[in-house]
Amino acid sequence: MDQVKIGICGLGTVGYGSYLVLAENKEEIARRAGCEVVVSHIGTRSVKPEQEVGDTRVSANVFAVADDPEVDIVLELIGGEDLAKDLVLRAVNNGKHVVTANKALIAVHGNEIFEAAARNNVCVAYEAAVAGGIPVIKAVREGMAANRIEWLAGIINGTGNFILTEMCDKGSEFADVLRQAQKLGYAEADPTFDVEGIDAAHKLTILASIAFGIPLQFEKAYTEGITQVTIEDIHYAKELGYRIKHLGIARNTDDGIELRVHPTLISEEKLIANVDGVMNAVMVQGNAVGPTMYYGAGAGALPTASAVVADVVDVVRVMDHPQSAVPTLAFQNDHISDTPVLGISEIESAYYLRIAAEDKAGVLSDITEILGDHSINIEAVIQKEPRDHDAQQVLSVIILTHEIKEAVMIDAIGKIEALEAVSGNVSRIRMDKLE
Amino acid sequence: MDQVKIGICGLGTVGYGSYLVLAENKEEIARRAGCEVVVSHIGTRSVKPEQEVGDTRVSANVFAVADDPEVDIVLELIGGEDLAKDLVLRAVNNGKHVVTANKALIAVHGNEIFEAAARNNVCVAYEAAVAGGIPVIKAVREGMAANRIEWLAGIINGTGNFILTEMCDKGSEFADVLRQAQKLGYAEADPTFDVEGIDAAHKLTILASIAFGIPLQFEKAYTEGITQVTIEDIHYAKELGYRIKHLGIARNTDDGIELRVHPTLISEEKLIANVDGVMNAVMVQGNAVGPTMYYGAGAGALPTASAVVADVVDVVRVMDHPQSAVPTLAFQNDHISDTPVLGISEIESAYYLRIAAEDKAGVLSDITEILGDHSINIEAVIQKEPRDHDAQQVLSVIILTHEIKEAVMIDAIGKIEALEAVSGNVSRIRMDKLE
Repeated sequence: MDQVKIGICGLGTVGYGSYLVLAENKEEIARRAGCEVVVSHIGTRSVKPEQEVGDTRVSANVFAVADDPEVDIVLELIGGEDLAKDLVLRAVNNGKHVVTANKALIAVHGNEIFEAAARNNVCVAYEAAVAGGIPVIKAVREGMAANRIEWLAGIINGTGNFILTEMCDKGSEFADVLRQAQKLGYAEADPTFDVEGIDAAHKLTILASIAFGIPLQFEKAYTEGITQVTIEDIHYAKELGYRIKHLGIARNTDDGIELRVHPTLISEEKLIANVDGVMNAVMVQGNAVGPTMYYGAGAGALPTASAVVADVVDVVRVMDHPQSAVPTLAFQNDHISDTPVLGISEIESAYYLRIAAEDKAGVLSDITEILGDHSINIEAVIQKEPRDHDAQQVLSVIILTHEIKEAVMIDAIGKIEALEAVSGNVSRIRMDKLE
Repeated sequence: MDQVKIGICGLGTVGYGSYLVLAENKEEIARRAGCEVVVSHIGTRSVKPEQEVGDTRVSANVFAVADDPEVDIVLELIGGEDLAKDLVLRAVNNGKHVVTANKALIAVHGNEIFEAAARNNVCVAYEAAVAGGIPVIKAVREGMAANRIEWLAGIINGTGNFILTEMCDKGSEFADVLRQAQKLGYAEADPTFDVEGIDAAHKLTILASIAFGIPLQFEKAYTEGITQVTIEDIHYAKELGYRIKHLGIARNTDDGIELRVHPTLISEEKLIANVDGVMNAVMVQGNAVGPTMYYGAGAGALPTASAVVADVVDVVRVMDHPQSAVPTLAFQNDHISDTPVLGISEIESAYYLRIAAEDKAGVLSDITEILGDHSINIEAVIQKEPRDHDAQQVLSVIILTHEIKEAVMIDAIGKIEALEAVSGNVSRIRMDKLE
């Protein structure tokens, strides 16, 4: 095998980035892969004037690439779900290997796609779908292969981490930082996928699947965004020695799998608490290796292309013997587990609570009595004057609790909110020791 | 293939740890590997009373394991160089795959061993040889395959990092912390390999080889230990916003490869500056992905076993088609580069200098004049009274410089030490921006 031919579908940021990396690092890649890797066909509606693709064949229809008998490996970099799914299935059914960076596609349609790949004896690789350039799929699927993985937790959305970092460092409000992120190109015009945690939940779904050997179950992931995180909460958390990060957490408990994306208080002592800006990091805890962490750029043209092209090299290596490839979901297809995913009300967590209460005798004791009645142990309490003084004498009561089942906490919060001296909703942010 | 048979040579910390991981995580490993992985033969002079190996066959002679026709994969976990080399070559020549955790063996005899493995069409895997449980060999060799790797820098010796962390946090002297580390089992009775940087140089040699596609050249690694690092230096570094870490640094420059282990000042803002205690971390910078970092336990029975057994699973996957395996040194054997390794006097670095000088007019200007004459630019100067006051009025002058060739700096230091007002040697610690 002297040459492997690549078809790139989609010439956006990642598609053109992959083209550039394959061209720029051509020699290093050939030295590693043992053969030349060339782009022979690009599927894109239009090549932009600033894009330079030499005399590479270009088709307006991406399916022409998937149908091209010369192409060995199709890179699906068009994004979205429906067209991407049709394209990948077409390529797979044509006996072609596929590399994709599409987290939504894998999280939602992965089970079906991987089945088709197994039937056709081809590889579908997706390192770039999670945490951009960080080889975390490889670390979990292969590097941790000796372990029962106990839990993983990641900052897996750069936009959200940028926003929380700026709020923390500069004291700016969410809406202001979001506008800044949009200006810098870190956030989309419609930021829903990022700030509501959907993007992170796609990635977490994939990580949980390869960590625990369960099917992809995006629909069961609990997703809570960062739009409700206030400067006040970030400020109090900092004072108590914590940072608020938007984490994806997956944990293998005796009762089932926890699968949840939400703002989380973590101790500033933890390395991952210091992962700032648009950078990503994933902690993975195995029963043999203990805690590990993987850090790098979670997005961007070249970092994502780095993962796409690493997958290409992996595929090149095993394409003559696809049975030697790492199982797509880390575990052999006939050994996928049916351990259930827990609903969010069933998980156990410690909590940060912020309660707005009138400055009257007995309020704090009413609150702690409710917590006591629910067997919720308190780790710390601080009482604060509000940062912007209003007419009424309203205090902020901050409580850190020990671990308790979420359903119990929700019930207790309901009772606290019903107290006459308590105004508005209780802010509730989960805490994690990452241990 | 229903079952793969493992022979463990050496039943020390890592050997028995690997036995335990293979037993304890048997089911997870089989689900990933697609077949049962069983230990069928152990080579050890004696099984300790607290070690439980069931009815596994035990030979006092490790060569009996390498010669056992039933054994598919030999784990070389006896350590040391000579016997280990004979053992590995025997196994390889018997057509067996080998997994080793032996950094000295690979760094010093790797080229010869890998040649023998290629001739015999078997795999020799060595993830556990670098940074214990962190899958950093995999990350560099496979995860970064799309990149031209520009540099890497790692805290790759837990003992040294523990000592520097304790010195920094508690202000204890080197000798005291070393004794404590020995008591805790973090340091050997003879700590030379760890504190003089030899262990780190072994690991760095391996990392550089797979990063840049050069042969293993341990003899060319520059090695400087941490025995000369003083509390004073750690204190001043901290005051200036830096931490002193014992780093292994490998850099691909236009002039050649830098390969060096030494104490290094790094900004406290860098994530790796916050890697404390016995933990390890390796930063790797690729031209596409940018900076990445890999963190975890660098030693210990189970973390190291985690890497050994992950290698076993990798080997199981490709043993029917070893040509599908990742090239041992990341690059194809016929594409290893002859880029030279630079001598330490040829490298460029920024420096921290601590100069003991009499408190007289003109001393500082004499020093800065010498630096100016050598075209050494100054980034910062602080002048300090000594922490323990002595009779003479001796000041500490701390200077941070910009980058300059080491040979030039050595020359300048010689001239500074010759100044009448300067007493003793100049403390010189390299700095790195890790950029």
